[in-house]
This record gives sequence, structure tokens and C-alpha cells, in this order.
Amino acid sequence: MSEGAGGSGNSAYGRKAFKRSRSHFADRITADGRDGWPVESGRYRLVVSRACPWASRALVSRRLLGLEEALSLAVADPIQDDRSWRFTLDPDGRDPVLGIRFLSEAYDRRETGYPGGVSVPAIVDVPSGRLVTNDFQQITLDLATEWTALHRPGAPDLYPEALRDEIDEVMAGVYHDVNNGVYRAGFATGQEEYEAACAGVFRRLELLVPRLERQRYLVGDTITEADIRLFTTLVRFDAVYHGHFKCNRWKLTESPVLWAYARDLFRTPGFGDTVDFDHIKRHYYQVHTGVNPTGVVPLGPDLSGWLTPHHREELGGRPFGDGTPPGPVRAGEEVPARGRPRSPAPAH
Amino acid sequence: MSEGAGGSGNSAYGRKAFKRSRSHFADRITADGRDGWPVESGRYRLVVSRACPWASRALVSRRLLGLEEALSLAVADPIQDDRSWRFTLDPDGRDPVLGIRFLSEAYDRRETGYPGGVSVPAIVDVPSGRLVTNDFQQITLDLATEWTALHRPGAPDLYPEALRDEIDEVMAGVYHDVNNGVYRAGFATGQEEYEAACAGVFRRLELLVPRLERQRYLVGDTITEADIRLFTTLVRFDAVYHGHFKCNRWKLTESPVLWAYARDLFRTPGFGDTVDFDHIKRHYYQVHTGVNPTGVVPLGPDLSGWLTPHHREELGGRPFGDGTPPGPVRAGEEVPARGRPRSPAPAH
Repeated sequence: MSEGAGGSGNSAYGRKAFKRSRSHFADRITADGRDGWPVESGRYRLVVSRACPWASRALVSRRLLGLEEALSLAVADPIQDDRSWRFTLDPDGRDPVLGIRFLSEAYDRRETGYPGGVSVPAIVDVPSGRLVTNDFQQITLDLATEWTALHRPGAPDLYPEALRDEIDEVMAGVYHDVNNGVYRAGFATGQEEYEAACAGVFRRLELLVPRLERQRYLVGDTITEADIRLFTTLVRFDAVYHGHFKCNRWKLTESPVLWAYARDLFRTPGFGDTVDFDHIKRHYYQVHTGVNPTGVVPLGPDLSGWLTPHHREELGGRPFGDGTPPGPVRAGEEVPARGRPRSPAPAH
Repeated sequence: MSEGAGGSGNSAYGRKAFKRSRSHFADRITADGRDGWPVESGRYRLVVSRACPWASRALVSRRLLGLEEALSLAVADPIQDDRSWRFTLDPDGRDPVLGIRFLSEAYDRRETGYPGGVSVPAIVDVPSGRLVTNDFQQITLDLATEWTALHRPGAPDLYPEALRDEIDEVMAGVYHDVNNGVYRAGFATGQEEYEAACAGVFRRLELLVPRLERQRYLVGDTITEADIRLFTTLVRFDAVYHGHFKCNRWKLTESPVLWAYARDLFRTPGFGDTVDFDHIKRHYYQVHTGVNPTGVVPLGPDLSGWLTPHHREELGGRPFGDGTPPGPVRAGEEVPARGRPRSPAPAH
């Protein structure tokens, strides 16, 4: 998850090797409500930053599964201050549903004087204003498997039972080496620590190439949770991880298979329409002052390539299995034009 | 030129827009000796850092013109400390010919208490140990036009009289927007200043593409000073300017024409054999702590592409005009293996 100034921002950038905090609030929202939080339409609010790869998993899952009406959405400002995630994008700087200015207020309502970091994704119980969970590894799995009664008609099965072992195995390697590996590389303060992490990122990505060369998706022939988790890192790769986090052996655009795979997902409804490159770039380059002291945000990379043909359909695959693609983005949740890639200029 | 800690290193990275210092010592070494410094074999010593694009121009010219015996070479450590350029690569940390530990000693012998920056390239008068010139814009022109009596047989004319207007015009634009533009982008402390510089870099590079698409070299059909000056920036582009200086609209490898042009020069004797990517990367990433506080040096980019076929011969051109390529690198001046690109692994 992405923490505030107390977490994966500046202070993680300290003497010791970067270590991702474990989610402190691991209650689960389930169909049977065994933790006291039953799945219920309209009861919970998902708080994300569009900058954050961990929170973006939930953004994608919510779209693919059609949970927009059942689970409302609060989008935090990509720039945190010392009070962490803020609702400064909303009128009067206040989330219109929760009525709070800082996500930390929901944490405080859950546990007074909670000393840990404030992270997204977070799911908040609207009636009480209390945080329910910030367990970024569990939230999307529960959206896929516990919230089924509220899924849209035609929602895909993102975590099919028969494939869970393989999905879990792929995700474990991708988590360690890639999702979190880019952070270990970027926040490393020593050369050795950096090199181990960076080498791991590219080793794992290169391991995935033969798999994705012959099949359209990571596991089985449909989109699964494994694809969502790889996508939210890949979509940030050239924009922030390549330069800011020094994962620069090659750009994603230089790896034909991974680049086509990422573009295919990007063009799939529910993926690219959640991505705000403006939020992504401003967050990383402006918040991590220990990595980028000036806070200058680069002009590049050229993003128009995201909209070029990928030809992955030729590999077959059934993106949504027996289901259907999600409909258009909900009104009010569209990513502003400045966060989206522009079509390439016509050749002349 | 590349200055020490007092110049284009850390302190240039201050409040105001980056502004390159003018060379203070602008005496010229000429055939007629009108400034008191006549061209003379064995009298002078060229001091460079292989990290520095301005000094590297002189490295290339010296090789192309075959001045290695006439003008000896001192290579400074790519990492400066607060005493600026050091001879820590030499036995006992002392230049074996000048007998000094820091380039600043030659500056001090020239002007006691000189308050400016200590920069490379520098040419030092060996008998007196005094700096003659650090005029990075003039040094290579003089090597080409004043040192002719000492050129090797078959040396090319790098600054042909008939083409000087065009060469000067091309170099002026390249200097402002590209050679120095990458520094203005990288040392910018404000967003606007950065954006203007970065946009200028890519605008100018894109302007050069049509020219280099139809002809092998920038001006005329032979290698000139203009090519040398563009080359020393392009060869550093992906290794340091792209990430460290945030010139990241695209990598050089993503611009087919410029990338082939740069590779063609890289494979031309006298160009690539002067380049030490290890010195380049360590200098930029470790010295500019205002840009990269940790001093971590990235593993990337993959450099093996430098050795791939460029097919620029198909454009015609006569690299050395009526002359010939230089011979092998002088013994003792070879770039160590860790600074050179490795051949790409065979496809499997």
C-alpha cells in the first residue's frame, strides 16, 4: 500500500533497507460478515490514490466486477503532506461522503492514537466513519470472491478456484521481485541493496516473457488477479520506476512482449480507464524528496504509445471468460484528460 | 567544461537557474605562438575527465588527428571531492608528468588564489606546470587548425574552411539546446525552468533528424567538429541525461536515426574508444548529490546495443575525407573493460 509521509514516502527512505509495513487493519469484509463487516451495498467507501499501484488494483477490480454502485469511491490528492493522504481534490477539501479532510481521521476513529502509517487502499465503514481494512493484499481477493452477490451481470471470475495455486505462485514471485522490488530499488540507500533489488526486477520480468509470448494472460486464458497486480506496476514502469526508482536496464517499451501485454490490458475496459499518469508522476516525483529533492516532474515519457495496436488478440484468450466487459466509467469518476495518453500525432 | 565542486557540480545546483561559467583562461596555443604558447610537440599536457562531455571532445579530436604523441594525456578520477578534479587514478594519486595531486595546483600556478571553478578540459604547460587554457569551446578548434604541423599523416580536416559558417551555425544551436540544455534541465530547481530546457533538448534533436536521415554526418560528407560535439552528448544520453537529468521524452535508442548516427560514430576509431561509461555513470550519479542524494548508480541501461549494426554506410559519406582512420588506441590509454559496452548475448 502507499503510506503517507510516515510510510513509503520519505521516512521509509532512511538508513535501513526499505521494508514495506504490514497492513495493520486486516479485518475482512465477507459475505457471512464473520469479522463484523458483512458485504452490503452502499455501506463502505473505497479510498484510493490513483498514484498508488496497490490502491489501483482495487480500482481495476471494482470496475471489472461492476462494484461501482455498491462500493463508492474517494480519490485522494496524489500529493501527501505530513498529515498523509488528503481530500484536497474535493470541494472544501473534504470527502463529500465521509465528511473528513484527511484519511487519517478514519484511522483515528478506528484506533485512537494509531501510531502507524496511513495507507491506501483503505475501506471505510460509512455509517461509523471507521476504517475497516487497509489490507492491500486481501482487499481485491475479497472483492472477487466475497462480494459476488453484488457483482454486475457478466462479471469475470478474477480468482477462479481451479487456478488459485498457480495464480498465488505467480503473484508471490511478482510481488517480491516486481511490485515491491521496484520500491526496494528506488528507496535503497546503498549500492548493493539497490543492485540486488533492480536485478531482481528485471530477472523476474524476463522470466515472465516466455509465458506471455505464448499466452495472452498470466494464468489460464482469462484475466485474473495476477494480471491486475502485474499491470499496476507495468503501467507505472516507464513513467516513474525507470527513472525515479532507477529500474533502468530497459524501458517497458523496449520489451516487445511485456509492452504488448501491458497495452492490451490498458485498452481493456476497467484497466486503462482507471490510470491517471498525471497523479502517478506528480506523486512519485514530488513526494519522495529523499530521491528527488527538487520535486521537478519530468516531461517524459511520451505516452502516446499506450494507444498503439498490440495484436495480442492473435494469441486467443477470452478476456472475461464467460462474462462480458464492464460498461463505461461512472460519471464523475473519469480520469481528466491531462492524466491520459494522447493519441500519437499522425505520421507526416 | 566540467567544473569541480565549485562549478557545474553541486553548487551550480543552487537557487538560480543553472548558468555555465565562462572559461576564465582563454589563452590560445597557436602555430605562431601569439599568446606566448606556441604549438610544440611534448610541451603540453591535456587534462580530461572521461566523464565530461566537454573534455571528451578533446579526447576525440586528439585521437582523430593523431596528436597522442605530441600532446600527452592525464585522466582525472571521475569522482571529484571538494578539491575538485584529482589524479587519484595514478600511482600515489599524483599525475606522473605534472607531479601534482589536484588539477587546481596547475590553476594556482597560473593565478594565485584563483577564485573560480577548476574545470576540464585543461591544457597545462609541462615545463612551468601552469595552466594555459580551459577554454572548452576553443581547444578543439585549435587542435584542428593550429596544431596541423603535428597531425598524423591522413588526419582529417575537422573544421574545413569552406564549411565553417554552416558548422558554426549547427554547433551554436546544438550547444545551447542540447550540449548545455541537458545541464539546464538536470540542474533546474524549478518546474518551469526544467520544462523549457527539456523541451528545447528534444526540439533541437528532432530538428536534426531530417538532416541526419539523408546524410551521414551533420555538415558536408565528412566528420567535422560538429559531429564530435553532438556525439559527446548523445553517447551520454541514455546513460545519464535520460534519467539523472530527466531528459526523458524518449531514449536515444528510441530515435532510429539519431541512434544509428551515434552508433556509427561510436564504431568509428577515435570516438567509441575514448568513451568510459563507468566513469560517466559514476561521475554524474555520485557527484551531483543535489540531484541524487544517495549516490546510488543505476545498473542500466543495457549498453550492448552500441555494438549493433547501424547501416549508415549506405548513406555514403567519407568519414575521413581524403584522409584515413586513426590507428589503435595508444598503449596505456585504453578504456578498461568495465567502461565499455559488452557485445550482445547471442540470440537463443
